[in-house]
Amino acid sequence: MLCVVGMPGSGKNEFVEVGKKFGYSIIVMGDVVRDETLRRGLPLEMHGAVAERLREEYGNAAVAKLVSPHIIDDRTTIVDGVRGWSEVEEFRLHFDVTIVGIVCSTLTRYERLKVRGREGDPKTFEEFEERDFRELGFGLGDVLALADYYIENERTLEEFRKACEDFFEKNGRKKAGE
Amino acid sequence: MLCVVGMPGSGKNEFVEVGKKFGYSIIVMGDVVRDETLRRGLPLEMHGAVAERLREEYGNAAVAKLVSPHIIDDRTTIVDGVRGWSEVEEFRLHFDVTIVGIVCSTLTRYERLKVRGREGDPKTFEEFEERDFRELGFGLGDVLALADYYIENERTLEEFRKACEDFFEKNGRKKAGE
Repeated sequence: MLCVVGMPGSGKNEFVEVGKKFGYSIIVMGDVVRDETLRRGLPLEMHGAVAERLREEYGNAAVAKLVSPHIIDDRTTIVDGVRGWSEVEEFRLHFDVTIVGIVCSTLTRYERLKVRGREGDPKTFEEFEERDFRELGFGLGDVLALADYYIENERTLEEFRKACEDFFEKNGRKKAGE
Repeated sequence: MLCVVGMPGSGKNEFVEVGKKFGYSIIVMGDVVRDETLRRGLPLEMHGAVAERLREEYGNAAVAKLVSPHIIDDRTTIVDGVRGWSEVEEFRLHFDVTIVGIVCSTLTRYERLKVRGREGDPKTFEEFEERDFRELGFGLGDVLALADYYIENERTLEEFRKACEDFFEKNGRKKAGE
């Protein structure tokens, strides 16, 4: 399975979109936590607290343990949302894991997020930095440093898409329909 | 000043070599610690213990504090050896800091280090992983995740050198002699 990692605004989503075209199923770790939140009868907004509780109960790999049963065929699955090395180790107990790191400079990520303005996206550089450090607090930097492939996303969307397609052509399944 | 960061075997040294040709001075943080070790009348092998003692005494940015007085012109200096975000913050108090992250897949880094076989280079994958995690333990992953530029070093040495030259041509001083 592919674990795609990158800092906020790096372009993970676009990688995932290209992956779909190549026939991959996507599992967003946060969605699994959100489902678990509802299953526990709690409001969706509490998913952060639920993730925290899960880690207290089952250790740092807790979310990966929760996600693993959802992976039907690891050869055709992209997991989005790995944040720490313990999660990678948990997945490696069961699956063949390839880490894909999407890298993009801090300034470009900030400018993209400002333009995107999705809910939860930072409005100021301070908010942006705060969010970066929140992500890094779980160990995302370690996973990014230990990636098996890197794709840079510094230039245009078209160039990045092309680089993602190259990756899937070399390493993954054929595009759907081929 | 440029802070070049990368995991062991990523190709930091080659970036530094290209930088020299463009007129940059290089400060290796480990060398400054080694000088401090001798200044304290201790054998060189104790430089690890000295760095640790420095951090206990002056906090996580201790080595950066020790290095700062050695930087004469930040516009023409490359610092090699930053390992944690506190060091970047310390440098930013005094200098204009640009972080250059050299990224290279785990497998390629391992194969390169095995071939290189320099003293201290790992002989087995276990030794290699141990060293990776030692570096990450200081927070290198965070600095790598927050870089201002990324240069990938996955293909040939020639291609990587070319990418470094492109970086210096766009962002740095002219090549010595030009």
